[in-house]
Amino acid sequence: MKTINVGLIGCGFMGRTHSNAHRKVNNFFDLEHRPVLKAICDNNGEKAKAFAAQWGYESVETDWQRLLARKDIDLVDICLPNNLHLEVAVAAAKAGKTILCEKPLARDGKEGEQMVRAVEKAGVPNLVSYNYRRIPAVALAKKLIDEGRLGRIFHYRAKFLQDWTISKDLPQGGDALWRLDVKVAGSGVTGDLLAHCLDTAVWLNGGVAEVSAMTETFVKERKHQLTGKVEKVGIDDACAFLARFKNGSLATFESTRYARGHKALYTFEINGEHASIFWDLHDSHRLQYFEHRDPGYLRGWRSVHVTDGDHPYMGNWWVPGLTIGYEHSFVHQLADFFEGIAKGQPAGPTFRDALETQYVCDAVLKSAKSGQWEKVKAAK
Amino acid sequence: MKTINVGLIGCGFMGRTHSNAHRKVNNFFDLEHRPVLKAICDNNGEKAKAFAAQWGYESVETDWQRLLARKDIDLVDICLPNNLHLEVAVAAAKAGKTILCEKPLARDGKEGEQMVRAVEKAGVPNLVSYNYRRIPAVALAKKLIDEGRLGRIFHYRAKFLQDWTISKDLPQGGDALWRLDVKVAGSGVTGDLLAHCLDTAVWLNGGVAEVSAMTETFVKERKHQLTGKVEKVGIDDACAFLARFKNGSLATFESTRYARGHKALYTFEINGEHASIFWDLHDSHRLQYFEHRDPGYLRGWRSVHVTDGDHPYMGNWWVPGLTIGYEHSFVHQLADFFEGIAKGQPAGPTFRDALETQYVCDAVLKSAKSGQWEKVKAAK
Amino acid sequence: MKTINVGLIGCGFMGRTHSNAHRKVNNFFDLEHRPVLKAICDNNGEKAKAFAAQWGYESVETDWQRLLARKDIDLVDICLPNNLHLEVAVAAAKAGKTILCEKPLARDGKEGEQMVRAVEKAGVPNLVSYNYRRIPAVALAKKLIDEGRLGRIFHYRAKFLQDWTISKDLPQGGDALWRLDVKVAGSGVTGDLLAHCLDTAVWLNGGVAEVSAMTETFVKERKHQLTGKVEKVGIDDACAFLARFKNGSLATFESTRYARGHKALYTFEINGEHASIFWDLHDSHRLQYFEHRDPGYLRGWRSVHVTDGDHPYMGNWWVPGLTIGYEHSFVHQLADFFEGIAKGQPAGPTFRDALETQYVCDAVLKSAKSGQWEKVKAAK
Amino acid sequence: MKTINVGLIGCGFMGRTHSNAHRKVNNFFDLEHRPVLKAICDNNGEKAKAFAAQWGYESVETDWQRLLARKDIDLVDICLPNNLHLEVAVAAAKAGKTILCEKPLARDGKEGEQMVRAVEKAGVPNLVSYNYRRIPAVALAKKLIDEGRLGRIFHYRAKFLQDWTISKDLPQGGDALWRLDVKVAGSGVTGDLLAHCLDTAVWLNGGVAEVSAMTETFVKERKHQLTGKVEKVGIDDACAFLARFKNGSLATFESTRYARGHKALYTFEINGEHASIFWDLHDSHRLQYFEHRDPGYLRGWRSVHVTDGDHPYMGNWWVPGLTIGYEHSFVHQLADFFEGIAKGQPAGPTFRDALETQYVCDAVLKSAKSGQWEKVKAAK
Repeated sequence: MKTINVGLIGCGFMGRTHSNAHRKVNNFFDLEHRPVLKAICDNNGEKAKAFAAQWGYESVETDWQRLLARKDIDLVDICLPNNLHLEVAVAAAKAGKTILCEKPLARDGKEGEQMVRAVEKAGVPNLVSYNYRRIPAVALAKKLIDEGRLGRIFHYRAKFLQDWTISKDLPQGGDALWRLDVKVAGSGVTGDLLAHCLDTAVWLNGGVAEVSAMTETFVKERKHQLTGKVEKVGIDDACAFLARFKNGSLATFESTRYARGHKALYTFEINGEHASIFWDLHDSHRLQYFEHRDPGYLRGWRSVHVTDGDHPYMGNWWVPGLTIGYEHSFVHQLADFFEGIAKGQPAGPTFRDALETQYVCDAVLKSAKSGQWEKVKAAK
Repeated sequence: MKTINVGLIGCGFMGRTHSNAHRKVNNFFDLEHRPVLKAICDNNGEKAKAFAAQWGYESVETDWQRLLARKDIDLVDICLPNNLHLEVAVAAAKAGKTILCEKPLARDGKEGEQMVRAVEKAGVPNLVSYNYRRIPAVALAKKLIDEGRLGRIFHYRAKFLQDWTISKDLPQGGDALWRLDVKVAGSGVTGDLLAHCLDTAVWLNGGVAEVSAMTETFVKERKHQLTGKVEKVGIDDACAFLARFKNGSLATFESTRYARGHKALYTFEINGEHASIFWDLHDSHRLQYFEHRDPGYLRGWRSVHVTDGDHPYMGNWWVPGLTIGYEHSFVHQLADFFEGIAKGQPAGPTFRDALETQYVCDAVLKSAKSGQWEKVKAAK
Repeated sequence: MKTINVGLIGCGFMGRTHSNAHRKVNNFFDLEHRPVLKAICDNNGEKAKAFAAQWGYESVETDWQRLLARKDIDLVDICLPNNLHLEVAVAAAKAGKTILCEKPLARDGKEGEQMVRAVEKAGVPNLVSYNYRRIPAVALAKKLIDEGRLGRIFHYRAKFLQDWTISKDLPQGGDALWRLDVKVAGSGVTGDLLAHCLDTAVWLNGGVAEVSAMTETFVKERKHQLTGKVEKVGIDDACAFLARFKNGSLATFESTRYARGHKALYTFEINGEHASIFWDLHDSHRLQYFEHRDPGYLRGWRSVHVTDGDHPYMGNWWVPGLTIGYEHSFVHQLADFFEGIAKGQPAGPTFRDALETQYVCDAVLKSAKSGQWEKVKAAK
Repeated sequence: MKTINVGLIGCGFMGRTHSNAHRKVNNFFDLEHRPVLKAICDNNGEKAKAFAAQWGYESVETDWQRLLARKDIDLVDICLPNNLHLEVAVAAAKAGKTILCEKPLARDGKEGEQMVRAVEKAGVPNLVSYNYRRIPAVALAKKLIDEGRLGRIFHYRAKFLQDWTISKDLPQGGDALWRLDVKVAGSGVTGDLLAHCLDTAVWLNGGVAEVSAMTETFVKERKHQLTGKVEKVGIDDACAFLARFKNGSLATFESTRYARGHKALYTFEINGEHASIFWDLHDSHRLQYFEHRDPGYLRGWRSVHVTDGDHPYMGNWWVPGLTIGYEHSFVHQLADFFEGIAKGQPAGPTFRDALETQYVCDAVLKSAKSGQWEKVKAAK
């Protein structure tokens, strides 16, 4: 088995999900490659050391440029805030590293374009961590669509609702709350949550042609963690948009952090001529499926408990009826990434795939300002 | 159209459901017969008068024997407490009346046997109001079973859970609370709720061979409404039993009025070799159906919204997606009863059908006392 | 008890729901008034006669102007296609009749304005039949909002999804399919379905300030039932829009007749600072409620089975746990209308209330054409 | 941090769940101890080698007695079929090893008693792997009960339904199908599935006093994998029983492998005076909770999404809304076991706790044969 030496940058929430995936992937998937936790990198040295101890990294770096310079690192795993993706990814590409980058690709399309150019010029394997594609029920949805079970698509609707920023006392910025700081995050729910919805949507239903959007910032000012001062909030707390896909279907998308009662309600529904599909992250092990071809008096939404051996990825886990959870989508992502490398067929979403999502986000934010329908730039 | 002159006895909850059915049935069903609300009878004259005004009865009686003596009455509708079923039904049969009788048939099998003999000797049309058979989703379950979709049956399970008698301060007996008075009701949840479960079960799955039961009376004494004294409670507050059906399937049945959170949770589930069915009165317009013959990765419980024109009874109501409710089961019952009379083919459950349910109840109560498995007497 | 002589115009689906309500209302509600089914009117005389026989109307008219001229008619119940509302309602107002008019008020705001002027000038009681306000769970939602349980509202989202016009072979126009004929209906899903969503939304959340919409006609041509020719389809098959309410909350609305698997999926959700509410017509007897004030580890969406005596309207029906259905919303509407007349306090939605909904529909259709955000005209 | 050297015996399904737990526990829980995967043991050497490679065991043994003799092994993890628990556990106790044993404790109470004596005599830490106690939603149920939220308990009901042995062509016995071989398993669903239900029930609701049971073997003969001959099936395919708890509450329990449509439907419900609880393994991240103290018109079953930081165990995983799955219950079990060792307070269920479950199983199987109610032997 070939080893892949991993250097992971960033000890936050995503650093944990990726480390866990690296540690587990070979226990459950038969692969040609095996990741080795070579180095963890964080500019906070104490944090990095503790993280290394907890996850079993062999060494610690506090400067990502030193990490990239190391010859014993094959894969750079970027688990940094959005504003750092561009610089690190471009440098990693130049250093010839395989790159796994947290989503969204970047703060906007312009940054994304530079990143795409860098990895394509360097010819390095690259993947953006839109992990929800690899939830088994979502992968099953893809399979059903590819089998042609839905027929012509009329409607797509997705939402991603949370409720964790309603309190006015919540500060913005700093380690745990950089997602509320527009300079770091680039945008609010658009880049954080709608980007997930869009990655899935484009994968399942093809490109988005045009959008009409609105955004809102409900709490206008928050104390900034780093400056200690009350500052204007620059991110979008909520964003909703109408869209027309290139295949003629209509869509609504919505995201917010002000939907009381929803922690991470990412749902999508697709209505086709012959069948429909619905999925909900809160019950991520189920796919709802309606087939019009069933006898009239027996038609109904089927709640498919996606835990059987013939469901995507599930043959590698336990036995029918026993669920897996959020973290496993990262394991599947790694398995697919490595399998793609082994076969020389890149697994998606590549940086270029992710640029398409970035362009839709750009059009959404532009439309929210212009009050007009905006066309989406083509990524391919 | 032929008229059927109705004399209804009892102005309680069931008097209302039956009166409503009589008033509505011809608005929605094309029938040869039309009921006319000829007379309402209650020993409380004031109550009867008010009821007549509210529902449009042409006359009032306070003595049920006088009602039976009237030649202008064709159908006697017995909406009385259980202890009065025997005497009134036997007299009505002798008077040659068509009889609709509230469930359960009687307080026990011995009373029931006399009633069966009376109607069969008189040759009068007779029906016992086990109304849940006529919920469209339940009728659809019957259709699926009759089509052979389930194959060999392995399991049947039913429960009927309520929570309205938990308070110790609730009295027993009298007008509204006769169901808690063992002399009037004959038993507690067994005759009131399990009888419903059993009527459906025998209809869907055939006869019950033997049972092992337990009962409990959680609140041992309650004030009696009529005597004003604290008296021993004679009814079963809760009853659960194991059963073996004649077809070899196993069953569990349970009922209680001490299940906090459930108002009228009547559910049944049938597991067959090829398919399973689940129904719940709280969402009575849905039938859950699982078909093993679906492709493996697409198997799931279908939630059939039983509101289409090709669902039982539903073509007579509104349009797809729009629900009906509890009261409509009584309308369907009347439509079927009248159609049976028109065709000369009795609709079930007849008194004899209902005797079978009574015998199971008898065996259940006997087993709860004996601590033994008890065989069920054959009704046919 | 005072009688109100009813003259109902139109023997279609709505003629049935209204007739049923007139027949039932006094059986279940204690009111000062009692409707009498005096006359049914339809330009098809045979149909009217059969309808009269089925529902118990005393007389038949084939010319609505003759009906309005009758002095023994107190209330005119307009169950006609949308294009006839204006003329009949204005004439009925001039004749001094109490008016109950099916929704939407009219084909557009201009027609609606004339109708409002007519009833207000005549001073006659008037109500538009947006019946879903009177589903008990929806009325409970209103009660919770009025109690201040939600706090500041951030989001409103509603959709009304159907799937009955997907087949290209379905014709347009004529008796049963006038909803597909733009000349008769005025619009497609906007006036038919979104109007329902908007009536509820404005009632629960106040006025809509501005909208950005898109519409689509998936099947461009259909055979017309009346001409027998294939003609262009003028209605919107689907419509989605973004909205900003006057209270600062954001909204998404969507409706279509191309959402496979949904017969009449009208849902709405409101997210407030302290609590959220969700409702679904397919399970109309349940209200989903989330309260943030519950202890953290016990927070969850409560599925309230709206069948208790202390739930709106439900004390008038059966006992806890037993459901009512679609038709009962019309009974409640009539009870409220009559109670309003008795008290001299008009029940809503009056014609003027309904004009507000009409203005939003106008803005939606305008925006779909202009590709711009459009302001909503003020109705009050 | 102290290391605990693990020797795990058995490379089947449970060997995998335990190995995964050993590898993960320190990544997510702060503990004094850290397990080291010292040795894997299986009498099939090839299998053991492959397993060692996949999971990172340092050495391989093919004879469990040799493993027990090793001084570098601290903890013996028994993942063997039921018939081997007794011999291995007693020997491990004698060797002074800490013992983690898969459930059920043994094939019957007699075997269990010897095991209890052995570990208590040796004074070694011991735990039986009834992992479902450590599903966060189940642990939350325990917390609510301990807080007294339910009040007096009236009812307990549990079932564990599967459908994987319906086919007559499925053989019995051998590596993967030893659960169907009565000599190896001891019993069928009673020891395999009902034992899970009983462990939870006794933990949540106290001891069981007496039971009345029935069992069935639907497929009477199956080919045996080892002998190649068609042999009588000795296990119970299905088992249902009535029970009375020592606290006076009534219960129904049911398990089967013939419930089409259910893969692993383990559900339990508890009805108390003030509140009720429901849980379902198929949606294991949710706890349904009903509180009668809520205002009457707002009462409803709350669907608690057990993924918050203040829910049991969940603070150690991801962020609110993101689910974990089946495997994590084993991680929690290990964390609790190690914490108990560190504190000197044994975590349950100990061998003695598990003996109580075993005694109920014995009484159930005895009752199914005798047709009588049977008392449950006391374990403490």
